[in-house]
Amino acid sequence: MDFEFLKKLIAPAKTKIVMLIMDGLGGLPLEPGGKTELETAHTPNLDKLAALSALGLSQPAGPGITVGSGPGHLAIFGYDPIEYEIGRGALEVLGVDFDLHPDDIAARGNFCTVDENGLLTDRRAGRLPTAESTKLVELMSAIQVKGAEFFLRPIKEHRFAFIVRAPGLRTALSDTDPLKIGVADLPVRALSREAERAAEYVNQFIDQARQVLKDRSPANMILLRGFAKLPELPKYKDLFGLNAAAIAANGMYRGVSRLAGMTVLDVYGDNPADEFAMLEEHWNEFDFFYIHIKKTDTYGEKGDFAGKVCAIEEVDALMPRLLALSPDVVIVSGDHSSPAVMKSHSWHPVPTLLYSKHVRPDGIAEFGERTCARGSLGVIPAKHIMPIALANAGRIAKYGA
Amino acid sequence: MDFEFLKKLIAPAKTKIVMLIMDGLGGLPLEPGGKTELETAHTPNLDKLAALSALGLSQPAGPGITVGSGPGHLAIFGYDPIEYEIGRGALEVLGVDFDLHPDDIAARGNFCTVDENGLLTDRRAGRLPTAESTKLVELMSAIQVKGAEFFLRPIKEHRFAFIVRAPGLRTALSDTDPLKIGVADLPVRALSREAERAAEYVNQFIDQARQVLKDRSPANMILLRGFAKLPELPKYKDLFGLNAAAIAANGMYRGVSRLAGMTVLDVYGDNPADEFAMLEEHWNEFDFFYIHIKKTDTYGEKGDFAGKVCAIEEVDALMPRLLALSPDVVIVSGDHSSPAVMKSHSWHPVPTLLYSKHVRPDGIAEFGERTCARGSLGVIPAKHIMPIALANAGRIAKYGA
Repeated sequence: MDFEFLKKLIAPAKTKIVMLIMDGLGGLPLEPGGKTELETAHTPNLDKLAALSALGLSQPAGPGITVGSGPGHLAIFGYDPIEYEIGRGALEVLGVDFDLHPDDIAARGNFCTVDENGLLTDRRAGRLPTAESTKLVELMSAIQVKGAEFFLRPIKEHRFAFIVRAPGLRTALSDTDPLKIGVADLPVRALSREAERAAEYVNQFIDQARQVLKDRSPANMILLRGFAKLPELPKYKDLFGLNAAAIAANGMYRGVSRLAGMTVLDVYGDNPADEFAMLEEHWNEFDFFYIHIKKTDTYGEKGDFAGKVCAIEEVDALMPRLLALSPDVVIVSGDHSSPAVMKSHSWHPVPTLLYSKHVRPDGIAEFGERTCARGSLGVIPAKHIMPIALANAGRIAKYGA
Repeated sequence: MDFEFLKKLIAPAKTKIVMLIMDGLGGLPLEPGGKTELETAHTPNLDKLAALSALGLSQPAGPGITVGSGPGHLAIFGYDPIEYEIGRGALEVLGVDFDLHPDDIAARGNFCTVDENGLLTDRRAGRLPTAESTKLVELMSAIQVKGAEFFLRPIKEHRFAFIVRAPGLRTALSDTDPLKIGVADLPVRALSREAERAAEYVNQFIDQARQVLKDRSPANMILLRGFAKLPELPKYKDLFGLNAAAIAANGMYRGVSRLAGMTVLDVYGDNPADEFAMLEEHWNEFDFFYIHIKKTDTYGEKGDFAGKVCAIEEVDALMPRLLALSPDVVIVSGDHSSPAVMKSHSWHPVPTLLYSKHVRPDGIAEFGERTCARGSLGVIPAKHIMPIALANAGRIAKYGA
């Protein structure tokens, strides 16, 4: 749906929406004829809610498309994940919870090893320990280039996030990583005229980094790739009229929420019970809450079927606390599927539950992949869920007379 | 989904996909409360496969739209049949299995009868016998026009296919058939400047045809209409990374497969058992197989309910031979519906089964219109089936991180 069309119909309302996202929620049976993780889990509270809800299956980015958590979240937040693409560098920076500005250009950084002639011998500097790379990142923070600011953040092992900031900077820039050893790193090239200034700043930074690191071992040089700016997302306040809060522990989910204009709350930890406590604590301050549960996906990607089942049951046990707040609309879904049997994200549509007192309930007292397949929401693009939730929250006015 | 988006994600894989198309598969009950042809048919093998598959209903060109076999096949092959329209002339030529080149312009030809003043007295020359029109087509093959080549192929009775070939030819051209008698045939007019050269070649051909045929009776003239070039379809290899083979007896299906870049195998006949034998014979040579079963549609269009039931049962009995090859993905569907009770193609969505070991099975052990309506694929555009099949075949990489 066209955002311009939707925005004109947005109306104020004193209602509250909760979007509970269990990361990688959708699953698969371990064997033919078996049950999925969600179907296996004992979920009396979700099942009771399902009976009063409309059920369906959501597709993050179209049929057959497996998404990463970035595009998966954009979709469930109501954005078209193909139109609003988040480049690799920007995603990396969202992951370290850095407040990226609209003009900033971000990249994925690697420490690497070069020989005395500057030829690459190890693109990952022997995957040096995070403590080591954290020190090198600090060392590089002294680098100064006139006209630009630089920010570096350690990530893990040889990886770090790289940000260059200057007013009006434009991408696109080529990678410095030649993706093979035995050759020198590449200079950054501007792939458009407007990007020339950015290329110059980054190349000056790299020249200095070469000097700063030259006597270090094994990490004596850096590689940068995936230069990207953030997509300019319309914000929740402007778009949906919502004063939204995000409750998520991991940086990337916090970053995407910030990108959507949500207030990202400081969480105590990634324990679901802590997250539900945050919801209770801030209940009066916002009218939209996104809660992110990480461990469903973690177990799915590890191939731990039973672990994922337990994680779902843990969330189910917390549902009465959420419902005790009397939210007007509750969405329970995932950003994508992560079947334990595949040990990865997958393209399978995601079970989705939408509760409100105005919903047309399917009357199916079980929240699972196959009950959702029979639900009245149908198989829908994930970006359609927010408009339906807004309608149920009384926030979309009538179109035409 | 945008092809450019999809192409970027296509990944190589050592998997095989079989698309089994029963032409006009979808049906209707003979009377209220009754069963459709597919529901009536005894299909133990398809039912067993259905239990392990995702089921759904596919719409070739949108709600309420009845398609011909050309657009129906484009859709199930993954193309948007409205964007990639095949003009009537081009479709006629695909039907005679002629290898139409990108610059060729094709038209539907009719033998007709004119009086001594050149006014039409019969637009179909009394539907003269095919043997007769075949001779006249041969006679006209001697016609030469400088700068262009012409190809004619008899079809049936008064109908023939007409092709003009010259480098860089452009359409659009007006018809010569005035669609009424008592008037003269019309000269071909170029409907754009670029088409002027083509119009000139065709008019020169028509002038000579008038001379060649003038003493014949009853067919002493020709009419041409539906001038069209082939749409430029992205090929299966480029688009999906697939090395695809088509097993189809009838010319039109072979033509559309060739248009999609498939290798069209020489078939012994249109007997389903022969077609399955072809599949076995060529199993190691390709990674995608399209098999076309004609007789389901033939019986549907004849209004022969029992005949269509038998045709479906014949295919069901062959399924073990297909499954013995251990394909990674199997699609069983149709290009459109042809309910016997309607004696024609219809707009009803088409029962569709998608099997793979990665599918989320609906667990419904019956392949029929109403079980498919409850399936987890939902009611989907037919062009979405290929991306889902590709995902199940491990041929689509993750989008974003």
